[in-house]
Amino acid sequence: MGITAQQFEQMKSRLGRGTRAPRAVMEACLQPPRSRHQVIVGIDPSLRGTGYGVMRLGKPQPRVLAQGTIRCPASWERSRCLARITQTLRDVLKQHRPTVCVIEALFYAQNLQTALLLGEARGASLVAAAEAGLDIYEIAPRKVKQAIVGYGAAQKLAVAKMVQRLLALDEPPASDAADALALALTFAQEQGRYSLSPLKRV
Amino acid sequence: MGITAQQFEQMKSRLGRGTRAPRAVMEACLQPPRSRHQVIVGIDPSLRGTGYGVMRLGKPQPRVLAQGTIRCPASWERSRCLARITQTLRDVLKQHRPTVCVIEALFYAQNLQTALLLGEARGASLVAAAEAGLDIYEIAPRKVKQAIVGYGAAQKLAVAKMVQRLLALDEPPASDAADALALALTFAQEQGRYSLSPLKRV
Repeated sequence: MGITAQQFEQMKSRLGRGTRAPRAVMEACLQPPRSRHQVIVGIDPSLRGTGYGVMRLGKPQPRVLAQGTIRCPASWERSRCLARITQTLRDVLKQHRPTVCVIEALFYAQNLQTALLLGEARGASLVAAAEAGLDIYEIAPRKVKQAIVGYGAAQKLAVAKMVQRLLALDEPPASDAADALALALTFAQEQGRYSLSPLKRV
Repeated sequence: MGITAQQFEQMKSRLGRGTRAPRAVMEACLQPPRSRHQVIVGIDPSLRGTGYGVMRLGKPQPRVLAQGTIRCPASWERSRCLARITQTLRDVLKQHRPTVCVIEALFYAQNLQTALLLGEARGASLVAAAEAGLDIYEIAPRKVKQAIVGYGAAQKLAVAKMVQRLLALDEPPASDAADALALALTFAQEQGRYSLSPLKRV
């Protein structure tokens, strides 16, 4: 797991003890790279149930500003679902003003048709984020599970429960929203440390 | 090949000769179903070169209102390409006001990754069309080639040359735009006749 804001503070106070380094220099050294993103949106696209979660970094833990699932009934035509996804995300981004978007990198699809449909939902999501001027990164699901649960093949429920704990929520978020918040949390950890394998921009 | 507007007129005049059916009844019988779409946009999506073509039905042949390829350099991030696709199509739709959009149905992709990227470009295109309130249909490439060239496995150049001829253009359109115009032409033919296999709405 990477460094949470809390761990970062603890580390700073530990390093601060007994050193003679001028405070400003120490701060600069400890400053995490790419630390400018304070409000992060995670998106887990799918045609009938796109999950999203927006959080603001802070102490003692990040605060959830919005989370939910964009549901589209099976009776709706595909294009109507796609328009709904873009429109809903556009509204969420406008209201909460994240500066960075994190989306799941595809690792698997049952067949070409599934990949195509997933791609359409991703396209609709990315258009909303790109038109809002956000930086966009993708992270593989395995990396998210590794970061959140510590185990790359973790079950969905384990992710949801850990997201609940890390964000001090009253109850575990619904599966799609939990995955989206997990993406945002993983990004927060990644941007809080120096990494040899930087995240992929899309 | 289906029925062009010209062939439809010829058929009408042939049937008109020597019959005693009141003109109104004959017109009603000959009236093609779903004939309300006069301005049609065809879209052939891809991440780096989305083709589009808008045409208005008329005599002696449909008139091309706009055609082109939305180019995105290989150096651009994917999300930037997707935003460009949506934005350009949005402008084209706003300017020429088609009422129906025809898009290529996927039939083949080399692998999941290709299908995903193609899906993203389709998603970005469909969002523009759906938000503009268009009816959206998809047609398989094989059906387009069959309708335009009379041969389901026709080469790209053969399609472009036939599109040039059917639309009385000075030169064959570039490959992506030709495919988009071929989609629009195929739709025009389909809506001009009774069909046992109606087009698929998406």
